[in-house]
This record gives sequence, structure tokens and C-alpha cells, in this order.
Amino acid sequence: MKKEPLYIIKVGGNIIDDDVKLKSFLASFTQIKGKKILVHGGGKIATKLAENLNIPQQMVDGRRITDSETLKVVTMVYAGYINKNIVATLNSLNETSIGLSGADAGFIKAHKRMHPSIDYGYVGDVDAINTAILTSLIDLNLTLVIAPITQDDKGQLLNTNADTIAQEIAKAMSEKMEITLVYSFEKKGVLKDIDDEESFIPMINLACFEKMKEEHTIFAGMIPKLDNAFEAIGAGVNKVIIGDASNLQELLDGKSGTVIC
Amino acid sequence: MKKEPLYIIKVGGNIIDDDVKLKSFLASFTQIKGKKILVHGGGKIATKLAENLNIPQQMVDGRRITDSETLKVVTMVYAGYINKNIVATLNSLNETSIGLSGADAGFIKAHKRMHPSIDYGYVGDVDAINTAILTSLIDLNLTLVIAPITQDDKGQLLNTNADTIAQEIAKAMSEKMEITLVYSFEKKGVLKDIDDEESFIPMINLACFEKMKEEHTIFAGMIPKLDNAFEAIGAGVNKVIIGDASNLQELLDGKSGTVIC
Repeated sequence: MKKEPLYIIKVGGNIIDDDVKLKSFLASFTQIKGKKILVHGGGKIATKLAENLNIPQQMVDGRRITDSETLKVVTMVYAGYINKNIVATLNSLNETSIGLSGADAGFIKAHKRMHPSIDYGYVGDVDAINTAILTSLIDLNLTLVIAPITQDDKGQLLNTNADTIAQEIAKAMSEKMEITLVYSFEKKGVLKDIDDEESFIPMINLACFEKMKEEHTIFAGMIPKLDNAFEAIGAGVNKVIIGDASNLQELLDGKSGTVIC
Repeated sequence: MKKEPLYIIKVGGNIIDDDVKLKSFLASFTQIKGKKILVHGGGKIATKLAENLNIPQQMVDGRRITDSETLKVVTMVYAGYINKNIVATLNSLNETSIGLSGADAGFIKAHKRMHPSIDYGYVGDVDAINTAILTSLIDLNLTLVIAPITQDDKGQLLNTNADTIAQEIAKAMSEKMEITLVYSFEKKGVLKDIDDEESFIPMINLACFEKMKEEHTIFAGMIPKLDNAFEAIGAGVNKVIIGDASNLQELLDGKSGTVIC
């Protein structure tokens, strides 16, 4: 039996905190036919709120050290402000949407990250995705909008990387559905040279990627995204696309962005 | 056919911003057998955050004038911080819960309040409740935790009174289910004299209430809550109870609080 398609779109970067870009992105998102999940970040807005509240922020390898005050900030910004604004906009565009964090319906099982030398604070790593509840919600014809907050089994909220959440949902749902996973951001795709938008790679497979890593012909910042992408493909995800959020339909049509296969 | 019971509990007052009281309340809440909805406020935490962000707050007749900055604050606090913390705590107590605002799944249709002389800003009044989607979610064995944020049909989020949301859900759901609506707060029940906890009235009907209003033998601050309660009863709600959040089971057993009938 052919699996039903499910589109999982991660949006991040500079799209979320630009009202005009975000609205235009959401309008394109509603044009995708079929079942959909949108996973969002929102780090820049969180950083700004933390600044306004005089809560010092510390990033290690692109991860936010999350003390208890910072956890409040990211919970408010991601699961409150950004999530509900996206949901309200989608609803107004006749895309009936429900906003979730990983805590809602307990659909993401996570634990506090333990690291031998760095105390990340309330940062969570994903253990498991409850696909039954996600499927039930999708079957109610709801589009799911997911904020990157999870919880552990003691009821402790945790700040969790949105790329990872998108990937974990994609992997878990791939058993029942045909998954297209899109990482959309402000770049054209995977770039060899971060300063040259035209250096983007239209298509990449694992052999090429390993070679480029070896020869250092790929921008280092792209490597974690690609590692995630290849892991997803290895776990049964049909297709992963990385590219510009302002060209969502072109990304899906294969006319733009980097396709990982 | 006998309707299935549904308990709709509003929690507000000083419970939400007191971690110990809230945890104890939530533990009692999980002890209620059957389908449940929890509607929460959180005004005091919102006021504190607004203060920390230097956003001046103005209340008119107990309603918060909601300019665009205040709307961000209440969306973050109600739909983010409070909602997700309650959900995470309930989940950790094996009560599988999903947090919603009125915008989620578009389940509350609302409009911006228009008033001849007062500009309330982004305050919403409820037009309709989508009972089909609520029923579908409840039928997934999810306990619903509802934050008092709604949206209009243009995608504008709106700050909406939590008592009203509880009442509107109760009225709308009463067609299909047998509703017990509980307003739980930090008082023993409906008080004749706000300074005397022992002046609470165990039971009140519409005739008594009208007489007490006429004779001014009831504390004025209780009148809107009771008006709401009698309207709910008139619209088909089975029972309304007003009382102390620290005695939830006693309230439901009729051993404490004010029963409106």
C-alpha cells in the first residue's frame, strides 16, 4: 500500500522575526496540498526578550545554555508568542492549525542533557515520539504547529533544538507515512562557501558529503544540518530538502534548494 | 440516553502564581474521575512581567486594557509559560493533557471588543465555541488545559476573560454532555461580606440572588461571577460550583463551596 505523504517543514533563521517574510512564508505553506507539520524556532526573539529582562545569554556551539530564567523566556516566546501567532495566521488563511509543544499530549519524551564538561541547564534531548497521538491529531485534519519545548517524566520543561525535533518526528512518522522533510531558512541551500549564495549544491548524496567533509570543501556550519538530514534518510525519511523559506513551493518542486538523497 | 459527565474547572486567583498551591491543586484535579477541561488565568504573573518590561498596565472594571505590547505579554504568559507548565505537571501525574488557546484548532470564534467610550485594545469577546473539535480531542482521552487567548477571523490574537471562556465552553458542551462547571479560587465560596470568610453561602438560587442584589446583602465583586453562573445554568449547564481551589474534591462532593442551582 502506498503511504500517504506528510510534509514536515522546519522554519527558522531570520524568517520568524520578520513579520512580512513570515506572513509570506505561511501563505506559501498553506498552498502545499496534503498533511503538514510546521516546526518553528524563534531564537532571535527569545534573545531580545532575555536582553530586555536583563537575563544574560550564553551560547555554546550554537546551543543556548538554559538556566531557569532563560527556560521561562524560551517557553513564553516559543510556545506562547510565536506559536500562537503562527496558528492564528494559518487559521485566518483557512488552514485549521493546532499549536503544540513537545509537552502537549506528552508527544515527545525527552530528558535533560547530561554532558561531561558543559552544564547546558534545562536543555532536552529527545528519547521518543508518540506517533499514535500525532496521527490522531493529523487525522482530525489539523495542521500541527510545533514549538521546540519538551518535558521530562518529572514534569520539567526543557528547551530542545527545533531541527532535531523536526528530524525525530520525520523519522518516527516515516514508518506510516511518506515523509518529505524541509529545512527552510534564509539561505538558498547547502553552501560550499557561506559568503557566496551561488555556491549552493542542488543535490548531495552521502558519498559526496563524506568527500566534501574530508576535503573541507563545505561550510562547517552546514555540517550538523546535513548529518541530521542523512540520518533521517537512513531512518526511512523519503526526501530531505534544505533551502530558502521564501521559495517553499520551488523547494518542494525540486526547482530550488539542496535535495539530500 | 444519559449524557456523559464533563467537568470544567476554572482556576485563577492566587493559585496560579503559587507553585506549591498550584501543584497541590493539580494533584487534586487528577483525582477527578472522568472527562475534564481546565481553564486557567494568570493575571498576576502577566502583571509582573509587564512591570519588568516597563509596560504600564491599566485595569478598567477588572479588565486589562490590552495594547499591542500587553497582548504579547499575556500571550507569552498565559499560552506559553503557565499553560505549558500546567500541562507538563499533569502529564507527569499520568494525566495526559494538551494545552490549547482559543486560537488552537480555531475552537473559539471571537471578535475585538467595541465599546462606546472605553478602548480596551486587543480584548476579545466570544462569539462561538466549536464543540465538534473539543469533543474529538476529549475522545482521544486528552485532558484539555485552556489559556484565555483567542483570535478573530483576521488572525489577530485577543486577550479574553478566562471566566467567560469557561462559561461559554460549559454552555456549548452542555448539549452533548452533563456539565459541572467549577469556579475555583482562593475564597471559600460566594461571600456576603468579602472580609468574612465565614459569610459564605452554601447554596443559592436565582430568586435568592436577585433579592440579595436588591438588598445589597452580597459583596459586589461576586456579582459578575454569579451572573455568569446563572446564565450558564439557564443555558443547560447542570451544576455550577464556586469555591476554594484547595478543596476541589470537597467542592465536587458538595461538602464545601457555593452550589448554584
